[in-house]
Amino acid sequence: MQQAIAILDSGVGGLTVVKEVMRQLPQEKIIYFGDTARTPYGPRPAEEVTRFTHQIVDYLKQFQPKMIVIACNTATAVAIDEIRAELTIPVVGVIHPGARAAIKTSRTQRIGVIGTEGTIKSRAYEVALRQISPNIQVVSQACPSFVPLVEKGLFRSEETRRTVEETLSELRRYPMDCLILGCTHYPFLSELISSVMGPQVTLISSAEETAREISTILYHKGMLATSNSMPVHQFFCSGEPRMFKAIAQSWLNEQIKVTPVVWQVPNII
Amino acid sequence: MQQAIAILDSGVGGLTVVKEVMRQLPQEKIIYFGDTARTPYGPRPAEEVTRFTHQIVDYLKQFQPKMIVIACNTATAVAIDEIRAELTIPVVGVIHPGARAAIKTSRTQRIGVIGTEGTIKSRAYEVALRQISPNIQVVSQACPSFVPLVEKGLFRSEETRRTVEETLSELRRYPMDCLILGCTHYPFLSELISSVMGPQVTLISSAEETAREISTILYHKGMLATSNSMPVHQFFCSGEPRMFKAIAQSWLNEQIKVTPVVWQVPNII
Repeated sequence: MQQAIAILDSGVGGLTVVKEVMRQLPQEKIIYFGDTARTPYGPRPAEEVTRFTHQIVDYLKQFQPKMIVIACNTATAVAIDEIRAELTIPVVGVIHPGARAAIKTSRTQRIGVIGTEGTIKSRAYEVALRQISPNIQVVSQACPSFVPLVEKGLFRSEETRRTVEETLSELRRYPMDCLILGCTHYPFLSELISSVMGPQVTLISSAEETAREISTILYHKGMLATSNSMPVHQFFCSGEPRMFKAIAQSWLNEQIKVTPVVWQVPNII
Repeated sequence: MQQAIAILDSGVGGLTVVKEVMRQLPQEKIIYFGDTARTPYGPRPAEEVTRFTHQIVDYLKQFQPKMIVIACNTATAVAIDEIRAELTIPVVGVIHPGARAAIKTSRTQRIGVIGTEGTIKSRAYEVALRQISPNIQVVSQACPSFVPLVEKGLFRSEETRRTVEETLSELRRYPMDCLILGCTHYPFLSELISSVMGPQVTLISSAEETAREISTILYHKGMLATSNSMPVHQFFCSGEPRMFKAIAQSWLNEQIKVTPVVWQVPNII
């Protein structure tokens, strides 16, 4: 099936999913939307994030995608059920794939989760994990300072290193054998996070796991791309595209074209 | 949903899937059928394996399972399309989950596959891998002597060590960064296989990956078990149950009850 997979996020975080889809499903065409004008979503009320998500999905409908991927944990936590109920195409979020991968990986049944305030407050990971495996012990922490650093492209700065170290200083004392990066921005910081948490803690990237599940779902629905030609991906962002483009090209390791989208409704923010 | 997941195999191999389902989906009830009277399936003609698989599925229907798992690579390779077309419940095989996990894991795009003669001859893994990622290089080898050793419970004997070493002596010279254990019996030998292949080769267990995908599919279909009580699993085998029970109890690390099933049709073998 030659239609695109539409992937959306509050900003550059969903590019971690894009990179994995490009690697694990090289024949699939991707249309990406980063809502950089309104990032971060983490501190916003659930109703607002839900409204923004609906708006982006409405924008993406013009491309008739075969699947919508909500590549933002905050938006998945609060909006996926509504979006799923509204559409006939498959809608994939980033929370359950990470939860399932953590259950597969953990041998001690003690799992850590880090995410935005919105995601952690929603307790979406605890619910997803305990729905499957009621005895799992979950310790979670919001890391509100991580997303703004990533959106500024500061993946390895001294400030970022210090912030990651301070933010995780308490969490690292809890026994766990895996830590879910419950925000698609966090794989940009995975080296730093891993060095703070130590080698005994396996990081679970919801990005990598979501790409794997996209592959599973497309296969089971008979919707895998069949073309052998290399797809041309399209990128949209709602804010100033310069920084978005710089981060995307460096992360994806290829040249891309970014189309800026201006939200037309004046009171939309 | 409180109905069971039905899992079938030519013998004890599918117990590697059972163990992972018990670990990753502890609330799910399992009904297992091992066709130990007619193991191994690997050297048999495709038509025969297809007929046997139909017969087991027909037997399992009496339990009204919510899902059928063909936990045998040989049977998946030759019979899954027919079984899937015949049933309205989801039918999960063990080949595609392993293929997707290998694509996720491999960084060099060079993947090895070992399996029974039937599986390797079918080229099912090459087809599954290349459908998703056409540039992947696959090297595969049949290991016909492995299944009989596992069915005899000889996981660590000197004979088994020598057989594994000799069988893989050529394959280990090929460059690859992961090796798919394309037979559900092989995780019983994973320590030996890993020591022969070396630490640079990640073993992909189709058993572990299939359990993960069972979890994905049950979630997306709203079919996860909701009970908090521990399920009681049921085990059936077509041959003499003593060895089956000994292997199952040791592998699953718990006491089980095995019900022998005698195929009623005299000419069925």
